Amino acid sequence: WLHLESICCVPTSYKGLKDATDTVIQLAQTHKPKPDLNGLVFGTIFTDHMLTIEWSLEEGWQKPHIQPFGNLSIHPGCSALHYAVQLFEGMKAYRGPDNKVRLFRPMINMKRMLKSAHRACLPSFDCAELLECIRKLVEVDQDWVPHSDSASLYIRPTFLGTEPTLGVKKPRKALLFVILSPVGSYFSTGAKPVSLWADSKYIRAWRGGTGDCKMGGNYGASIYAQYEAVDYGCQQVLWLYGNDHQITEVGTMNLFLYWVNEKGEEELATPPLDGIILPGVTRQSILELARKWGEFKVSERYLTMADLRQALEENRVREMFGSGTACVVSPVGRILYQGENLHIPCEGNLPPLASRLLKELTDIQCQGPGKYKKHCQNSPSAISGSTIML
Amino acid sequence: WLHLESICCVPTSYKGLKDATDTVIQLAQTHKPKPDLNGLVFGTIFTDHMLTIEWSLEEGWQKPHIQPFGNLSIHPGCSALHYAVQLFEGMKAYRGPDNKVRLFRPMINMKRMLKSAHRACLPSFDCAELLECIRKLVEVDQDWVPHSDSASLYIRPTFLGTEPTLGVKKPRKALLFVILSPVGSYFSTGAKPVSLWADSKYIRAWRGGTGDCKMGGNYGASIYAQYEAVDYGCQQVLWLYGNDHQITEVGTMNLFLYWVNEKGEEELATPPLDGIILPGVTRQSILELARKWGEFKVSERYLTMADLRQALEENRVREMFGSGTACVVSPVGRILYQGENLHIPCEGNLPPLASRLLKELTDIQCQGPGKYKKHCQNSPSAISGSTIML
Repeated sequence: WLHLESICCVPTSYKGLKDATDTVIQLAQTHKPKPDLNGLVFGTIFTDHMLTIEWSLEEGWQKPHIQPFGNLSIHPGCSALHYAVQLFEGMKAYRGPDNKVRLFRPMINMKRMLKSAHRACLPSFDCAELLECIRKLVEVDQDWVPHSDSASLYIRPTFLGTEPTLGVKKPRKALLFVILSPVGSYFSTGAKPVSLWADSKYIRAWRGGTGDCKMGGNYGASIYAQYEAVDYGCQQVLWLYGNDHQITEVGTMNLFLYWVNEKGEEELATPPLDGIILPGVTRQSILELARKWGEFKVSERYLTMADLRQALEENRVREMFGSGTACVVSPVGRILYQGENLHIPCEGNLPPLASRLLKELTDIQCQGPGKYKKHCQNSPSAISGSTIML
Repeated sequence: WLHLESICCVPTSYKGLKDATDTVIQLAQTHKPKPDLNGLVFGTIFTDHMLTIEWSLEEGWQKPHIQPFGNLSIHPGCSALHYAVQLFEGMKAYRGPDNKVRLFRPMINMKRMLKSAHRACLPSFDCAELLECIRKLVEVDQDWVPHSDSASLYIRPTFLGTEPTLGVKKPRKALLFVILSPVGSYFSTGAKPVSLWADSKYIRAWRGGTGDCKMGGNYGASIYAQYEAVDYGCQQVLWLYGNDHQITEVGTMNLFLYWVNEKGEEELATPPLDGIILPGVTRQSILELARKWGEFKVSERYLTMADLRQALEENRVREMFGSGTACVVSPVGRILYQGENLHIPCEGNLPPLASRLLKELTDIQCQGPGKYKKHCQNSPSAISGSTIML
């Protein structure tokens, strides 16, 4: 009934979160019309139901509730509203040609959520039980999983501190909820190359901060810079770090450079997980896929704007692309840096490596692990494929 | 009727926020009992009413509503809950021996709130109109302003992005609300010296970030370090910055060092507003008061842990204290740094300068500008005193 194919690869020995079998389901009396899948704007339409689970220090986790989608009743003094004691995750449910509904490596999201919760001083939970609660929610709203290979059902788990007091401290009450939204492509331009504004004026994350967790504060703080990027005629921010202008992330995506490196080696490179980089599920999957191929060097390494500029001058850059759950893979076409437009090779809008990765990943997302399944059983570091949910 | 004595000192030419005279008041049918002022825990008790004002891109600011205190109805997809598009302010209303209710330099808070709103991509508002709305709210709940010189009514304006969509972008809907809480001393130990854990493992704020704004994300991210400080037997975190371990802030307070500096000068020093320091109202007031006294050098300058350690070895440190709206002035007694306890002189628990500042500030807060009033009229940089609200 529940096929958690990827769970075999990860430990889930976390206490808490009541058994998913206790879930109380209250079905909606009316159902919203399903949206037109063309021109769907990311995260604007929500399904008929949501999952809520309350926690308190005294009583622990309460029974999960699947209930009609609606507003939350929140105390105006709660720490989620004043001190951003909050975090989220992002996953997608895909309907395959076999009509089965799959999640892409959901236990990686669950574990990352647990890590964020730890950093935010929110309580622990059992990853497998939460995933089963999410599965039940998707089951209730399964008609909302698009019958389409370009659309999916975005799953947004959110976790809030709800202690209704103004002291800056570990919350004694919390609310975990999950909402669902049918989505198309994240960028309105589809898979067209994005243009980036690279400037050290704003810093997304720093060592000793929370940049490696999906805490809300990382995102709200980024919006201002995003509008400045638009003022400069670019679509997204390329976040730099340090005096040497290290390349870190793009907007809300991880970043990859496919190039011939300074030693003349063909290399796919992305910044290492040193505390300021979000450990993206798509990032990890791209690294694992490319390492499995074994066709070129795959590195987690520092890259600076000087490295990039020199490589462009010497025609050593092949592709550059962002990766994330919302966009999967998104090629970069241009970077505005120190008043100069750096043009990144981007043949046919979706260059060969980005295109190949996009196809492999969406194949796994929509059609299940297939040939990758065996890697899940043999090695925890190989890409473990999708989880059939329904 | 409305005596905004300190408004003379600041420009308020910001558009938006409907006229406070439009405020719709719906009184509570029942009134909560007033709390015992002894043992009041900061921010746990709220008054009978709250102020809410909605904004949308299409319709601008709506009429302010004063209504019974109660839960907010919030869309589960809104940007305040997912991306910490949120900010707050903190002010106190004091009841003086003349039974008048005063706010301490409230326009500085209103202007800082506007600055935070700009950084958070939330809409502008008219500072004077918002203050008048707050005055009306305090008027409705005036029985909650404690008849005590050690307690006050804490005012918490909060501003949230309420656009109900998951794209990371400037919200097209927002909610500004204000809640009130009678408070005693912030620290349960009263004015006793606090102990600090100084470690560069966690960084509160960084250049290019939001540390100089009261955005929620700055606070939630700090809680984890606060508990690590407690694990090390300290009460608060002393936030350091950079490889030279610059001293920045303490917990949720600004920090002052009163010492004989490296040149042999008697000096009151606090870190400069360089983007990583919160521009505290109490900080500004202490600087202005001490400069007005003209008795010693008053500096906004960098201070490192090496500077402090050397000064302690040479007996050049006189006092160290935090400042903030919640605590006013809070002396520091001990700093745990690199495994060593640095003991800060702290005679009688409240050393002379901290004691004098605490008295002058609370006098102004409770008894009005008095002798300081003339400075408000003559110079915008001198301390401008309190605003009589009721």
